[in-house]
Amino acid sequence: MTEGFGRVDGQLAVGGIAVERLAARVGSTPFFAYDRGLLAARVSAVRAALPTEINLSYAVKANPMPAVIQHMRGLVDGFDVASGAELRNALDTSMPASRVSFAGPGKSLAELTQAVAAGVTVELESEHEVTRVRAVSETLGVAARVALRVNPDFSVRGSGMRLGGGPQQFGIDSERIPAVLETLGDLDFQGFHVFAGSQNLNAESICEAQRKTVELILGFGVAVRYLNLGGGFGIPYSARDKPLDLAPIGENLAALVDGPIRAGLPEARVVVELGRYLVGEAGVYLTRVVDRKVSRGKTFLVVDGGLHHQLAASGNFGQVIRRNYPIAVANRIGSPATETATVVGCLCTPLDLLGDDVELPAAEIGDLVAVFQAGAYGLTASPTAFLSHPAPLEVLV
Amino acid sequence: MTEGFGRVDGQLAVGGIAVERLAARVGSTPFFAYDRGLLAARVSAVRAALPTEINLSYAVKANPMPAVIQHMRGLVDGFDVASGAELRNALDTSMPASRVSFAGPGKSLAELTQAVAAGVTVELESEHEVTRVRAVSETLGVAARVALRVNPDFSVRGSGMRLGGGPQQFGIDSERIPAVLETLGDLDFQGFHVFAGSQNLNAESICEAQRKTVELILGFGVAVRYLNLGGGFGIPYSARDKPLDLAPIGENLAALVDGPIRAGLPEARVVVELGRYLVGEAGVYLTRVVDRKVSRGKTFLVVDGGLHHQLAASGNFGQVIRRNYPIAVANRIGSPATETATVVGCLCTPLDLLGDDVELPAAEIGDLVAVFQAGAYGLTASPTAFLSHPAPLEVLV
Repeated sequence: MTEGFGRVDGQLAVGGIAVERLAARVGSTPFFAYDRGLLAARVSAVRAALPTEINLSYAVKANPMPAVIQHMRGLVDGFDVASGAELRNALDTSMPASRVSFAGPGKSLAELTQAVAAGVTVELESEHEVTRVRAVSETLGVAARVALRVNPDFSVRGSGMRLGGGPQQFGIDSERIPAVLETLGDLDFQGFHVFAGSQNLNAESICEAQRKTVELILGFGVAVRYLNLGGGFGIPYSARDKPLDLAPIGENLAALVDGPIRAGLPEARVVVELGRYLVGEAGVYLTRVVDRKVSRGKTFLVVDGGLHHQLAASGNFGQVIRRNYPIAVANRIGSPATETATVVGCLCTPLDLLGDDVELPAAEIGDLVAVFQAGAYGLTASPTAFLSHPAPLEVLV
Repeated sequence: MTEGFGRVDGQLAVGGIAVERLAARVGSTPFFAYDRGLLAARVSAVRAALPTEINLSYAVKANPMPAVIQHMRGLVDGFDVASGAELRNALDTSMPASRVSFAGPGKSLAELTQAVAAGVTVELESEHEVTRVRAVSETLGVAARVALRVNPDFSVRGSGMRLGGGPQQFGIDSERIPAVLETLGDLDFQGFHVFAGSQNLNAESICEAQRKTVELILGFGVAVRYLNLGGGFGIPYSARDKPLDLAPIGENLAALVDGPIRAGLPEARVVVELGRYLVGEAGVYLTRVVDRKVSRGKTFLVVDGGLHHQLAASGNFGQVIRRNYPIAVANRIGSPATETATVVGCLCTPLDLLGDDVELPAAEIGDLVAVFQAGAYGLTASPTAFLSHPAPLEVLV
């Protein structure tokens, strides 16, 4: 998980720059650093594994830093956005609006208006949203480009989070789709989106979801120009997690593209939408040791960051069991582990735990600690205003 | 939990204003509304229960909205802050610096400098922090006002979170205190702070912690002008929680003040420091229904807010088991419950759940949903940038 980053002079390097120099360039700690090269390498690896017919869309929500979105513009075929602000940032790249989709329950009238005016594909999440987008289309005099997000009649084993199957706030129940298709009127219907679950490390269950999705869409018996198969590719966060094997997913998609899709959905642009998988492992959170103390035999490293910046690493964002994310003393990257230390943040709460009993080289005050797997759902998925500390910075190198 | 707020014309009222009118005044949803009268009433109740000798300090971290801090200035005897920004906001009231304490591990050099320059009481959390604050004092030519935060040799049953006893990132181990007192040099030593745990609903365990704290401090055998007994008073969040009984705590504190404190620590200003208990129940989170859908027999109300504003209510901030916070349809407050609905936020994640299978009056699109117990650790303890939605507003009425 940590091997992708380079090393310079015994230090972790991001984008080829040693972390101490990078910290000086950024100007303050803590900060998130994202590696441009790792982002490109990850997209290449996905492209190499999947058939060329597959369009790769980046789910901006995973990391909405504007510079990251701009960089991803050159690498992927489309964007998926989840809010008006993400939409604006996506459109500030040169990505054509026709390659941008807008999904999510509870879109506001302002967001629907933005989306229809921009000409992006609005993924409709409910029957009421169909009515609303028709009204917006009428007001603007623009036929909205739409797709239906389908809540499938199956669910997927192995997802970290299940977003499809059974009753759901997401999408329109598959059995309602034929009726809803009748209500689209003048809307510019593109096709369907099915997203069964996220953070899945089991290739076979992802393949199964893709096969069932294609079967479900074929059953609707309508012409489809856009078929978003979702994503859900997971990344490892702890030593217990095995990285996802892309090869079987590529083979499965190739069989689908060459078989039922070519036969039954020949016009469909087939999209795989990935967020976390593309950016999660390309980012690291860097925070400086401000105190080192031994309390009743236990060594604590107190850093200037904490859960207010990287909540998931503290185990407090939806996780049932807390496990350490990979963590290192970034300016002693080649040194052997010589002690067991617990890395805590600077907040007044015992929840603020970044690494529990970790084997590390002996760290001193002033050292930089790196928490890996911080490229997705880090800064924006954390309570940055907690205790009113300054917000951390981000850098793309 | 919800009775404190008034009702006007069948609507929930905050500060005497019906929520629909308040929403119009605020200008947008979602927002947090805090009730000035409920804050005052809660402080009065605490004052009535505790002996008059007790100084009441407000832990700003629980709700750092500047208007709330200004309002609390007129109600309490002191403030506790946890960051440089909280310190600035506390000093922007007329509270004397001598009544402000600054606690927390990992204070930055900038924060220590601010605190010493301001003349607030710096609560030292480690031996290294003693060295650092001495250096700052020397640089500024100002003898820092300090207290030692003690990690006690006991722990407290019943706390939602334990912050004392065993190995801790908080405070200096009690057995090290005599040695550390020798190293204070010219620092202006005030006394001690012990904080055993937070969110405790068991009065007897709070009493026990207070008794043990006084005993511990007496054992140090030094003159004490400041004795911060911590707080930890919990509030109920779910129907299973019983409100804390203040009466036994008041009796226990009276016995301590009249007994061992008068005898052994006659000069001590005795402080009880409360955050959540003072403000938690005085706040409500208001969010509007933007969609209503039935998926496979289950009714969902999709609101324009969610866990990005009120993370704890979603059960994803350190909770082991998710339980519904009290929730209501705020503009139908007198109406009987006629259906079971699940209230979800507008984020693209199944974690975004505000009320699971709640009995409610039938809500329509446009209705306002109120999530109670939102006065503490709400907005600032939530990932507001998640999916890049606009930040919610706050209003003190």
